[in-house]
Amino acid sequence: MAKSREVEKPNKAFGWAARDSSGVLSPFSFSRRATGEKDVRFKVIYCGVCHSDLHAVKNDWGTSTYPLIPGHEIVGEVTEVGSKVQKFKVGDKVGVGGMVGACHSCDNCANNLENYCSKMILTYGVKYYDGTITYGGYSDTMVSDEHFVIHIPDNLPLDASAPLLCAGITVYSPLRFYGLDKPGMHVGVVGLGGLGHVAVKFAKAMGVKVTVISTSPNKKKEALEHLGANSFLVSKDQDQMQAAEGTLDGIIDTVSAQHPLLPLIGLLKTQGKLVVVGAPEKPLELPVLPLLMGRKLLGGSCAGGMKETQEMIDFAAKHNIIADIEIIPIHYVNTAMERLVKTDVRYRFVIDIGNTLKSSS
Amino acid sequence: MAKSREVEKPNKAFGWAARDSSGVLSPFSFSRRATGEKDVRFKVIYCGVCHSDLHAVKNDWGTSTYPLIPGHEIVGEVTEVGSKVQKFKVGDKVGVGGMVGACHSCDNCANNLENYCSKMILTYGVKYYDGTITYGGYSDTMVSDEHFVIHIPDNLPLDASAPLLCAGITVYSPLRFYGLDKPGMHVGVVGLGGLGHVAVKFAKAMGVKVTVISTSPNKKKEALEHLGANSFLVSKDQDQMQAAEGTLDGIIDTVSAQHPLLPLIGLLKTQGKLVVVGAPEKPLELPVLPLLMGRKLLGGSCAGGMKETQEMIDFAAKHNIIADIEIIPIHYVNTAMERLVKTDVRYRFVIDIGNTLKSSS
Repeated sequence: MAKSREVEKPNKAFGWAARDSSGVLSPFSFSRRATGEKDVRFKVIYCGVCHSDLHAVKNDWGTSTYPLIPGHEIVGEVTEVGSKVQKFKVGDKVGVGGMVGACHSCDNCANNLENYCSKMILTYGVKYYDGTITYGGYSDTMVSDEHFVIHIPDNLPLDASAPLLCAGITVYSPLRFYGLDKPGMHVGVVGLGGLGHVAVKFAKAMGVKVTVISTSPNKKKEALEHLGANSFLVSKDQDQMQAAEGTLDGIIDTVSAQHPLLPLIGLLKTQGKLVVVGAPEKPLELPVLPLLMGRKLLGGSCAGGMKETQEMIDFAAKHNIIADIEIIPIHYVNTAMERLVKTDVRYRFVIDIGNTLKSSS
Repeated sequence: MAKSREVEKPNKAFGWAARDSSGVLSPFSFSRRATGEKDVRFKVIYCGVCHSDLHAVKNDWGTSTYPLIPGHEIVGEVTEVGSKVQKFKVGDKVGVGGMVGACHSCDNCANNLENYCSKMILTYGVKYYDGTITYGGYSDTMVSDEHFVIHIPDNLPLDASAPLLCAGITVYSPLRFYGLDKPGMHVGVVGLGGLGHVAVKFAKAMGVKVTVISTSPNKKKEALEHLGANSFLVSKDQDQMQAAEGTLDGIIDTVSAQHPLLPLIGLLKTQGKLVVVGAPEKPLELPVLPLLMGRKLLGGSCAGGMKETQEMIDFAAKHNIIADIEIIPIHYVNTAMERLVKTDVRYRFVIDIGNTLKSSS
């Protein structure tokens, strides 16, 4: 079993890490810092598998360092709190999402937008304040400044709420920020994957009429009957798309593959908003005139701040919103990654860390 | 002298028209409808030369019909009003901009956004309600439903206010709609032409700090000293552009040539807004990740509704905002068009219709 060559920290930890851009994950012993006075330490019970984990382990963005322990949809139970921790106590159900640090002094931090802080620290694969590299949630324990820890409400199942910490906030935040959360509005959701299926649930709970837009006609039944979408458009069906022109107040576009924007812009009413939350690697083609002619806009959004993340999960608890998940043991994670490439999952893998990740494995 | 082959209408009129896609303008006799009960008839005194006039006479968009009389920055003096006209009387100084009709029953019309009405009727080159083709302001008289006529405040010179009816409202409206009009904000204006120079003036009058962004270093002196911009960036100077990253609340991008968006997005603060009012013929390349990472947006805007156009010109009157113009006689208009291709004008040609357009010419 491989061991970290980093400086040994006080708390032994164990996880699964990628060692190179093959992206193959395997058992890995490492250590985590002692519980600082504002830190919350918790036993990881479940961790969601986000599509960005796949990009990270394969170094698709060219920024990965190895060994890399992915995972930023982490939930578990508090085992220790620092002396100055105010919001948490041992035994609390908690979660950590995509970030574990920020500057706390810039305009974005002052506005509860730590996610847009230029010094924001990601949950894994980047340098923490103490110079060590952050490790994610495919591991048995986690430690984080309490500012970046979320209370998981009692009525939410831990496993199916894990994906809300990334997928959930990623779609909830733009629905709120771009004002697509008003009852009676009509919003489109493009792509029915980890993000899209949660977007449908949040939008419906906000009282919004939802149209799912997908390349796959075979997702129609699922979208309408299981997720409760009001209608379904096959994006490649020009007749369907034309008939729906000018009907949407906004669109949450979760697709990170290259795709044409023009048909989506066409679906918008005057002053409609196309919000992209997936990031294609290459620039998309933007036809400008259709934006001008209807004062439409195309906006971006990336995760959400800590205050809004807590709001999101409280809203989810109130409306019984959870992700649709497939629970897997840690030993299955490399197979899961392969299936993720083929989008062969409905809709999120969640690793059963608590029962299957053992240092003796 | 050519004559219209259209059905003769009661009022003889005279203008300069393009006959084919050469775009060459020449004298042209035609007729205009009788003054309807809600119509305002006026003697045209000045007409601005908008860049879209050039596109129209050359059929660059493939939608032109000939003969075509361009001109949608039209000002003059009322000579006759219909029996039900309420807002105007003979002798009033008035203007007509880019449109002369709309459905008055859709949501956009109900919200004073006739400019986004799908049945909006352009001032020239399209079918009017009566089936005849609309003719623009390169002509001696104009007639329009009073709803599409603007009062020109007394303290504004007629000649230099003509361009406000298109260029003015095109930049004023997005400054307001996208909330880039708050004192102390910092807004960029890309391109210092007919639209850009007026954008600087409006933004300054709103109390906004303005940075002009241009490919031409030789416009710096003019931008700072004459137009009152606070700073100037040469868009091709990477050092300058980098130093200004993350400093702008918004950008009004007036450039209709192909140009890169990435450097402009980089200039924006978190939640900054890049508003495009020029329409390049081909799609632009849109890098998505930079939008996501700062919750930035790219929005379109096209002219403005009639209520806002009146507000715009009243605001201009209050703050002494006029366009910088070069007055030309009608005989010079073909040369002016050639100079427009080379952007050789500071910043708008205005045709002295009153003194130089004679049917005997």
